[in-house]
Amino acid sequence: MWSKNVETFLCCDAAYEEAEIVLYGAPFDGTTSYRPGTRFGPAAIRHESYGLESYSLYLDRDLADGAVFDGGDLELPFGNTERVLAEIETREEQILRDGKLPFLLGGEHLVTLGAVRAAAERFPDLCIVHFDAHADLREEYLGETRSHASVLRRCHDLLGDGRIFQFGIRSGDRSEFLFSRAGHTQLHPFDTEGLTETLAALRDRPVYLTVDLDVLDPSVLPGTGTPEAGGISFDELRRAVTAVCQECRVIGLDVVELSPPYDHSGVSTAVAGKLVRELLLALSNQKRSE
Amino acid sequence: MWSKNVETFLCCDAAYEEAEIVLYGAPFDGTTSYRPGTRFGPAAIRHESYGLESYSLYLDRDLADGAVFDGGDLELPFGNTERVLAEIETREEQILRDGKLPFLLGGEHLVTLGAVRAAAERFPDLCIVHFDAHADLREEYLGETRSHASVLRRCHDLLGDGRIFQFGIRSGDRSEFLFSRAGHTQLHPFDTEGLTETLAALRDRPVYLTVDLDVLDPSVLPGTGTPEAGGISFDELRRAVTAVCQECRVIGLDVVELSPPYDHSGVSTAVAGKLVRELLLALSNQKRSE
Amino acid sequence: MWSKNVETFLCCDAAYEEAEIVLYGAPFDGTTSYRPGTRFGPAAIRHESYGLESYSLYLDRDLADGAVFDGGDLELPFGNTERVLAEIETREEQILRDGKLPFLLGGEHLVTLGAVRAAAERFPDLCIVHFDAHADLREEYLGETRSHASVLRRCHDLLGDGRIFQFGIRSGDRSEFLFSRAGHTQLHPFDTEGLTETLAALRDRPVYLTVDLDVLDPSVLPGTGTPEAGGISFDELRRAVTAVCQECRVIGLDVVELSPPYDHSGVSTAVAGKLVRELLLALSNQKRSE
Amino acid sequence: MWSKNVETFLCCDAAYEEAEIVLYGAPFDGTTSYRPGTRFGPAAIRHESYGLESYSLYLDRDLADGAVFDGGDLELPFGNTERVLAEIETREEQILRDGKLPFLLGGEHLVTLGAVRAAAERFPDLCIVHFDAHADLREEYLGETRSHASVLRRCHDLLGDGRIFQFGIRSGDRSEFLFSRAGHTQLHPFDTEGLTETLAALRDRPVYLTVDLDVLDPSVLPGTGTPEAGGISFDELRRAVTAVCQECRVIGLDVVELSPPYDHSGVSTAVAGKLVRELLLALSNQKRSE
Amino acid sequence: MWSKNVETFLCCDAAYEEAEIVLYGAPFDGTTSYRPGTRFGPAAIRHESYGLESYSLYLDRDLADGAVFDGGDLELPFGNTERVLAEIETREEQILRDGKLPFLLGGEHLVTLGAVRAAAERFPDLCIVHFDAHADLREEYLGETRSHASVLRRCHDLLGDGRIFQFGIRSGDRSEFLFSRAGHTQLHPFDTEGLTETLAALRDRPVYLTVDLDVLDPSVLPGTGTPEAGGISFDELRRAVTAVCQECRVIGLDVVELSPPYDHSGVSTAVAGKLVRELLLALSNQKRSE
Amino acid sequence: MWSKNVETFLCCDAAYEEAEIVLYGAPFDGTTSYRPGTRFGPAAIRHESYGLESYSLYLDRDLADGAVFDGGDLELPFGNTERVLAEIETREEQILRDGKLPFLLGGEHLVTLGAVRAAAERFPDLCIVHFDAHADLREEYLGETRSHASVLRRCHDLLGDGRIFQFGIRSGDRSEFLFSRAGHTQLHPFDTEGLTETLAALRDRPVYLTVDLDVLDPSVLPGTGTPEAGGISFDELRRAVTAVCQECRVIGLDVVELSPPYDHSGVSTAVAGKLVRELLLALSNQKRSE
Repeated sequence: MWSKNVETFLCCDAAYEEAEIVLYGAPFDGTTSYRPGTRFGPAAIRHESYGLESYSLYLDRDLADGAVFDGGDLELPFGNTERVLAEIETREEQILRDGKLPFLLGGEHLVTLGAVRAAAERFPDLCIVHFDAHADLREEYLGETRSHASVLRRCHDLLGDGRIFQFGIRSGDRSEFLFSRAGHTQLHPFDTEGLTETLAALRDRPVYLTVDLDVLDPSVLPGTGTPEAGGISFDELRRAVTAVCQECRVIGLDVVELSPPYDHSGVSTAVAGKLVRELLLALSNQKRSE
Repeated sequence: MWSKNVETFLCCDAAYEEAEIVLYGAPFDGTTSYRPGTRFGPAAIRHESYGLESYSLYLDRDLADGAVFDGGDLELPFGNTERVLAEIETREEQILRDGKLPFLLGGEHLVTLGAVRAAAERFPDLCIVHFDAHADLREEYLGETRSHASVLRRCHDLLGDGRIFQFGIRSGDRSEFLFSRAGHTQLHPFDTEGLTETLAALRDRPVYLTVDLDVLDPSVLPGTGTPEAGGISFDELRRAVTAVCQECRVIGLDVVELSPPYDHSGVSTAVAGKLVRELLLALSNQKRSE
Repeated sequence: MWSKNVETFLCCDAAYEEAEIVLYGAPFDGTTSYRPGTRFGPAAIRHESYGLESYSLYLDRDLADGAVFDGGDLELPFGNTERVLAEIETREEQILRDGKLPFLLGGEHLVTLGAVRAAAERFPDLCIVHFDAHADLREEYLGETRSHASVLRRCHDLLGDGRIFQFGIRSGDRSEFLFSRAGHTQLHPFDTEGLTETLAALRDRPVYLTVDLDVLDPSVLPGTGTPEAGGISFDELRRAVTAVCQECRVIGLDVVELSPPYDHSGVSTAVAGKLVRELLLALSNQKRSE
Repeated sequence: MWSKNVETFLCCDAAYEEAEIVLYGAPFDGTTSYRPGTRFGPAAIRHESYGLESYSLYLDRDLADGAVFDGGDLELPFGNTERVLAEIETREEQILRDGKLPFLLGGEHLVTLGAVRAAAERFPDLCIVHFDAHADLREEYLGETRSHASVLRRCHDLLGDGRIFQFGIRSGDRSEFLFSRAGHTQLHPFDTEGLTETLAALRDRPVYLTVDLDVLDPSVLPGTGTPEAGGISFDELRRAVTAVCQECRVIGLDVVELSPPYDHSGVSTAVAGKLVRELLLALSNQKRSE
Repeated sequence: MWSKNVETFLCCDAAYEEAEIVLYGAPFDGTTSYRPGTRFGPAAIRHESYGLESYSLYLDRDLADGAVFDGGDLELPFGNTERVLAEIETREEQILRDGKLPFLLGGEHLVTLGAVRAAAERFPDLCIVHFDAHADLREEYLGETRSHASVLRRCHDLLGDGRIFQFGIRSGDRSEFLFSRAGHTQLHPFDTEGLTETLAALRDRPVYLTVDLDVLDPSVLPGTGTPEAGGISFDELRRAVTAVCQECRVIGLDVVELSPPYDHSGVSTAVAGKLVRELLLALSNQKRSE
Repeated sequence: MWSKNVETFLCCDAAYEEAEIVLYGAPFDGTTSYRPGTRFGPAAIRHESYGLESYSLYLDRDLADGAVFDGGDLELPFGNTERVLAEIETREEQILRDGKLPFLLGGEHLVTLGAVRAAAERFPDLCIVHFDAHADLREEYLGETRSHASVLRRCHDLLGDGRIFQFGIRSGDRSEFLFSRAGHTQLHPFDTEGLTETLAALRDRPVYLTVDLDVLDPSVLPGTGTPEAGGISFDELRRAVTAVCQECRVIGLDVVELSPPYDHSGVSTAVAGKLVRELLLALSNQKRSE
């Protein structure tokens, strides 16, 4: 089932059976309305990971000590959005069933919907912690209900009110913010203020963590589909996601929206890879069980 | 119905009612399996056309003397391939119904299918002249039958044997060439040899002309999704398409697969724009009637 | 008089007659001494504006509710600086005469001189609020008195002492700072400190606002002619210009020095467009009268 | 008078007094209407020349055996076209007066006018051999008579009919070709056909050679302001200019229109440098006298 | 011994034991004097091979029918040239010893020396067929005898006169051509003329084939360290190397000098990959024995 | 001995004999394991310095008042690391012997070792102040002890414990931090905290200052070999190095690791040049004696 021909992410060479965490990619950007290219994200993150150290000075841990399996990328049919989501859901489901932690690399943000469908099925009280520049709460976009601009709205369809916690949001249309203010999601604009309280409240619940890399300022991460000025710094994001991983019960996660064609200098890919490393290290001493 | 907010292609400022030729764009690359970006093709061709002369020394004609309406780009729902094709078909149909010549700018090659559906409906004896590096005759691709790699195969479904004439083809899988050799299409590999005979045979029939710009050598046109070494020169293509326009009864046409994100120097866009100009000029003294 | 063939900035589709604000571009970089390319600035800002939301979370306003006319770009004769300035002056004059607010997109910074000539004629007590990395106070540059490096000095020729308020300045030759310190302009180095006091003092006077985008740190806006390390963040600039628009009587403004050829990732253009949106929204509830 | 701070072109380290040939640059692109950047041409050609061999296998000569002085770039006032032309004229005049061969590196094509003014003054029977994609024969452009698009027309003003021989031309407006066909210039479209006859006819007359690099196909030289598909190959140009240098009495020459900002891969600059080397070597055994 | 973490070249997924041909990379550019980056060549060729068809219309063969093992890249110590060569030699030796055909991907051209040392040891009557823009016959370069500019000279040290056949050469210093003309190598300048006679003469002898991709014109392959105008076309090279593989007894080969950092559009990598595919297919029906 | 063919850094045109400070470049990247290109650093810093002002508003000093000689770049043999280090050592030695302050521009960080060898010989109590993202304390790297990743470890071999003060470090393998914590170096992670105390302690001792530009955040300086997220701002670095220069007895220094091929927008080079200017100005009123 897993790709055999894959250059794995830094040190993620455990066998599936022994792995705690399973990394896999969904190279899909089929509903991207502005600048496509996130399909190349997972391969770029893996390929450029050889420029990273496996040791983290922030956490004083080394990925070489971990047990991560990198399953490579799903082979996805461009042009058929529903089939793409179904393939992601199936894969996520299996990893969860095997008692492992699935870590999905996008691809555009819509891929999160496939993973959340599986996670919500298994963990009915699932909550989502969401870092993003965009609210992604549109009812539909250009007539389509399954779109990168609607992904959290679709997650809300599955989970209901009070389950989605959004941070760093600074862009959307008015209807999205009205939807949130009506009590459907908890939206923290511009930065990560309020995270501590959120994490305290979530402590016992299963959490799906989704990180849209465009939450970072475009100076830090130019290589993304829809860069949005006024974002947070790498250190603010690193600290925030580390806190989520260490203080919550994360049962699945993703990092999405790296677009290598717009990353001429390679720094966006380096940033994304370093964040993935920090996430893997922060998660590796977690207790994870249903 | 037509976009109002559009920067038109060079001198194409006739009113729709008076226009002989109607230019419109389909900024779609949703089934692109390798490098996306052709969605930006029509806008780039228009925007960079101000670097072109309206006069052609090859044809001794001037676009300023023509009657072309540029209707801008269709607004297409990414992620729903069938709806995209339907919108193109509807537009093409209307232009044909109004007795005008539709000229579609892609986008990926699948957009041709929408246009050919409309043209085949109106002209039951339609033939296709096809310039491309790739045969595009796959039965399916990654499980999808509607794909850029299958577009001529789908056209064959509509038109049947002996209607499709392919030139410049140098890439495909074995099954595609077996399909052609079985008599389903007339395939001229590598270059435009055989075009004179083809045009002579087609003289009385309605012809749809489809130009995948990757028929050009990648040195001439690097900015395309799937560059394929060993292609033809600009002059060979210019002469060939001029001949089609002047010696056949072209009832519709397209130019597809320019991918601006891979055209850092801008020469690919300049080449595409110049080809569009030559096509418009070559077509402008055509007799077109059903 | 206005260009018909223009793709307008996001939602700026009001008729001239009904518009409160008139956007127009001056695609000129003829005196640029280092890296040219700002001539492409206005077109890039317009073209990429479709990646922006019309709604601003900062201001809780939507551009779709505004009344802005986008007149496209002036057609300017390269190589004749004085004629270029005269054409800008004429256009600015007309917009002011019609009781509308002119918003000029550069182009290099010298274009400001054309606009200020018109504004100073109409508003004899005009003041200028200026955000820039460079003082632009040179008496001449390479023998020319009309140059991007002298533009504020030429404005001083028109307005005299105590009328020009400069922020963010971090580069220039010694003579420029001596000129300012001699009491000719009020220069706030490095950042926007002192803006509150300046705005309080200006409250009743007509203000021309000129924003050279290189006031931003080059990490935020690499795509400019003369990047200068040590600049301010997007949020500092956004807050500052919003304050000017909301607390002063702005009678004209410009945003200059975006150079798309040096903006490979597109983030500079996205930053510029977002700033233009915020300015348009901040200005839209202004009282403007002579 | 000459710049001291200059990295010279490959082996061009003779003293001015001993030099046969004097290389100098005019980094000007002030009338460029489309894509600026040729101002960086001379510096790029020099800087990248260290990647070239000094020996030519085509001519079996070595630049290390030559006597070329590289005077660096003129310091030119952007924004004042007439002063720029005057400075070039003065420099060209002096080199001619000193009995040396001036070799000018552009910059945009208008710089040729400064050099031709000086050469025509000194050699009243001067002829021009011109390689270019564009006729450059416009009476005026955007209201300006001194423009890159008018440079050969201005040369015709100085020299009169029958003096200008144009090769490779494939673009212009209709009026330019009518002007030529009226007997004012001898224009050879598309390629270098007819050169042998022209050179035979010119043998005794003083010739100014001007090479606009966009005569090359854009695949060979993407890095130019106005790329024009359908050009000649490097070998066709190399052979043609070598023939001019070896069979005529060249008294001055230029190579113009390299635009490094559009030369991301560096191959355009490498092509230009190699052509300059071949020209220097071909000229070094010339007899040159008034 | 072989890398486990490697994304293999298109369909090259045979086990080592069953493979006829063994592909491996030497990502080394340590003596490159001009533009480094060829170290990324092998990884880029593999990674972008998924954009290639496995079937060749030229040869009517499919790589999926072959038996090629891709061993990944050697891990080489930068800064120690001799150790690098020794590691390549060891690897090449083993593959030859196992009766397989080694196919080395560079890296800079010096890597050929490691492979030729092993091949010359095993096949004392070895000949070399060499395609390149540069003669690479310098005795030393900047004081070093082991350099990309000296690699064929070092091969001559091993093999002696009459063993090296060079094609396409158009650059070098005078001493290199004198060395060749003195009878030490057979050098065919500019193109592949003379190849038929050479192949006829070589028919019975073991041949090492080395292809420096810069033999191609820079329009075809801009992404190389030292682009040299005036090269051959893809089709000329494809035909030439196919002839060598089909008419000679090739016992080892390499393709070197692709430099991805200078290949912004990706066409150079696509060209290189297609050439590798053609070579693998042409070789797959060879009789190879000592 | 010094290069004659060099375009000097901004205003650095003093004669060697009169110079206080001697700037020279070591264009070497031979041990770079990830992305090469720093060899082009010194030339780029010089060439782009014409976009900088000679006057600094931070220091209120002007480089035109200084006495700096720019000796150009060493000519270094790629592929022979030890010879490269020896050439740097020799040059550094001579400058120190002549009572001048050597300022080395890299190249990769290993070049520091050549300079420190000379400085340590002359100043036995030498200390090093080191700004970098990486600890550079590896015992060896890929089997080589002389590597960019080991350069401070090699300096420690020469100087012993308590002599090396590291700031901004955020990457390395675990062994490097254990080495430091064992008391061998004083390592300040992440930023410049602790610098004031360090400078106070160092006041009387000879200091060598080495600045690896990757200490800056990649948003500020993308153009470097190994970008590492989470770095310091330009202003933090500027303030820190100014403090070192003004409060310590700096006897030699370097700025290394600018990689122009990854600096598409040019902002990294502009940042590096501005830092060099600030360093030159901060050093110019120093008392320097043994």
